[in-house]
Amino acid sequence: MKLNSGLIALEEDYVFAEVRQRVQRFSAQNPDRKVISLGIGDVSGPLCRAVIRAMHRAVREQGRRRSFHGYGPEQGYLFLRQQIAAALTAAGAPVQPREIFINDGAKTDLGGLLDLIEPGSRVLLCDPTYPAVRDDCRIRGLEPVSLPAVEADDFLPMPPPGDPDFDAVYLCSPGNPTGAVYSRDQLAVWVDYARANEILLLFDAAYAPFLSDPALPRSIYEIPGARCCAVEIGSFSKLAGFTGTRCGYAVLPNELSSRGIPLQALWARHQSARTNGVSYVVQCGAAAVYTPAGQRQTAKAIAQVKENAAVLSAALDAADLSYWGGEHSPYLWMKCPRGLSSWGFFDFLLEYGGLVGTPGIGFGPGGEGYFRLSAFGDPSRLREGGLRLVRAMDYLR
Amino acid sequence: MKLNSGLIALEEDYVFAEVRQRVQRFSAQNPDRKVISLGIGDVSGPLCRAVIRAMHRAVREQGRRRSFHGYGPEQGYLFLRQQIAAALTAAGAPVQPREIFINDGAKTDLGGLLDLIEPGSRVLLCDPTYPAVRDDCRIRGLEPVSLPAVEADDFLPMPPPGDPDFDAVYLCSPGNPTGAVYSRDQLAVWVDYARANEILLLFDAAYAPFLSDPALPRSIYEIPGARCCAVEIGSFSKLAGFTGTRCGYAVLPNELSSRGIPLQALWARHQSARTNGVSYVVQCGAAAVYTPAGQRQTAKAIAQVKENAAVLSAALDAADLSYWGGEHSPYLWMKCPRGLSSWGFFDFLLEYGGLVGTPGIGFGPGGEGYFRLSAFGDPSRLREGGLRLVRAMDYLR
Repeated sequence: MKLNSGLIALEEDYVFAEVRQRVQRFSAQNPDRKVISLGIGDVSGPLCRAVIRAMHRAVREQGRRRSFHGYGPEQGYLFLRQQIAAALTAAGAPVQPREIFINDGAKTDLGGLLDLIEPGSRVLLCDPTYPAVRDDCRIRGLEPVSLPAVEADDFLPMPPPGDPDFDAVYLCSPGNPTGAVYSRDQLAVWVDYARANEILLLFDAAYAPFLSDPALPRSIYEIPGARCCAVEIGSFSKLAGFTGTRCGYAVLPNELSSRGIPLQALWARHQSARTNGVSYVVQCGAAAVYTPAGQRQTAKAIAQVKENAAVLSAALDAADLSYWGGEHSPYLWMKCPRGLSSWGFFDFLLEYGGLVGTPGIGFGPGGEGYFRLSAFGDPSRLREGGLRLVRAMDYLR
Repeated sequence: MKLNSGLIALEEDYVFAEVRQRVQRFSAQNPDRKVISLGIGDVSGPLCRAVIRAMHRAVREQGRRRSFHGYGPEQGYLFLRQQIAAALTAAGAPVQPREIFINDGAKTDLGGLLDLIEPGSRVLLCDPTYPAVRDDCRIRGLEPVSLPAVEADDFLPMPPPGDPDFDAVYLCSPGNPTGAVYSRDQLAVWVDYARANEILLLFDAAYAPFLSDPALPRSIYEIPGARCCAVEIGSFSKLAGFTGTRCGYAVLPNELSSRGIPLQALWARHQSARTNGVSYVVQCGAAAVYTPAGQRQTAKAIAQVKENAAVLSAALDAADLSYWGGEHSPYLWMKCPRGLSSWGFFDFLLEYGGLVGTPGIGFGPGGEGYFRLSAFGDPSRLREGGLRLVRAMDYLR
């Protein structure tokens, strides 16, 4: 057998796996020291009551002959697609239920949607960016093209000059790992560029729930013309703490087509071959996020993460460190002090602070010299984390 | 953008979607006639009590700060992998937990595992076969090569003569759609062939729970040498009625490698980029299948499907129709009478019997002239279905 050369060529270790290993080694050598993680963007707390209630109800239905659900629609249940469409529409991004495709988490479709594009095509990715997309490109025989996201542009790169030599672009706003948020005007430039050059725009809105300024766009479909060029990916992971429960969605608008081929129909065909849909119980839980109780309860959890982020911001200010993000994002993106490399700062912070964060290099070469802190987690642990950070920095003075 | 030419080239409609449309049209035109489906292989009844109990418990855990689960291991929770490994080992196919990878249903990995192989490679598929795999090949830029599964061989094709010009082969036993079951000796020939020619053997064991003859192999790993060449795919859909709950697994043995590259590590790397694992609640439900209560309750449901299959067999005998399967499989594969095409027989059976089955052509050109009946479903409906089948056949005399 000839193995997939793109898959074989992937770097040995995904950044989070390497982080896990280094922490395990440290904990084994220092059994008395309790490590605080400001690393992976996992959820802070349990699922909210509205979701739990809906999931119990769904489990009960699955246990009774009259109400159990076998194979569901590959695209997801209409009851959930209607809720998502209504929420996007209410937020100023008119979307229809038929345009929504439910998935078991944004990660699945970030890779899966690349199946729409011919192998050998080139995909523009910010550097740094969410690393799974770069890996997905290589697995699928697509060539990732790097678009530097640098301090001077506030980590919000605009379309590169000259004729584009790529077929798709992946943007994430609020961004992972930088927390940077595109303005409406900036996204309008990207949309015009994508339309003029027939480029597929993959827009990752997983962190939109953290936006608090109504002037900032929550959905690419707030931008005129986006329905002709953009797929949006949303997630319940950050919105409602679904990291261990698994649900997300992709939006493929009616107008999205290439040379007369509607991408919505093509994606529906793809999904009929590739999936049997998402667990009924999980979809019922996701739909409960849109009930009044679900809205109140998830808003409270998000407000808590934003408070956590403010605590970390204050610590970074106190330690006189440069950073970005944290305002409309659960992530704070900081510059490693004293010219340390990102793994160098990781090791320093673990050793001197008992703190874990994510080395920027894990998000691409452009992340070297930077470091990501995540504001997810228990508030008292986060506060302790902030104090440790400030104290640790004393060792560098 | 250049769209994926393999995806664009897929036939317009997946067979089950076309079936759904024809049934909808018939029901709209005949609102007074109640259609009985012997079509899609969906489950007969609700999840068993042991699974329901475990899922309620898991939902409760997800709602409490002390017990909720965020991101789980991409490979699946060890508690579930241990159960699956123990069950396979007890059945005579020694497997370790580290060799098991949990997925959200066999369909996901049947396509996903093709990522292991270099695009452009050729994959041998029986004709007829489960159509999603053929579609997956095309989506991934792999070339499906057809291996005729014909009546003369009891629909159990053996390796083709001459040098193989393909890198992988997909086998399903008990087979979908034919219900045919390979013997140990036959699988031993396939394993030897795969090893001698460095071919990856993808073995779909989704229907193994329906085997009642201990002489027939339930797992490819009962065959010596299989651990060096085969990936096995299992599913909770048929085993425990998880079609709407979504859980399955793939087995990648330690010994499986190609030119020194271990496929287990390669697949772990793939999964770290492509998934964040399966819902915690769902994995807890799946693990409950292996409790004593879960084993009793699922065995009862499977026995019911086998009784249903016996009812359909009796009806086919009474109607003097030729058929295969139904003994170790939920599917009966029948020859269309009077030289009817498979869609011709579909339309006939719908019109004269108010019955829905699956046209053989939907499983590949080799399925033309055949028809699949599924024994999943409510027993009284199945009995009524059998009666209708016999009555309908009178119209053909």
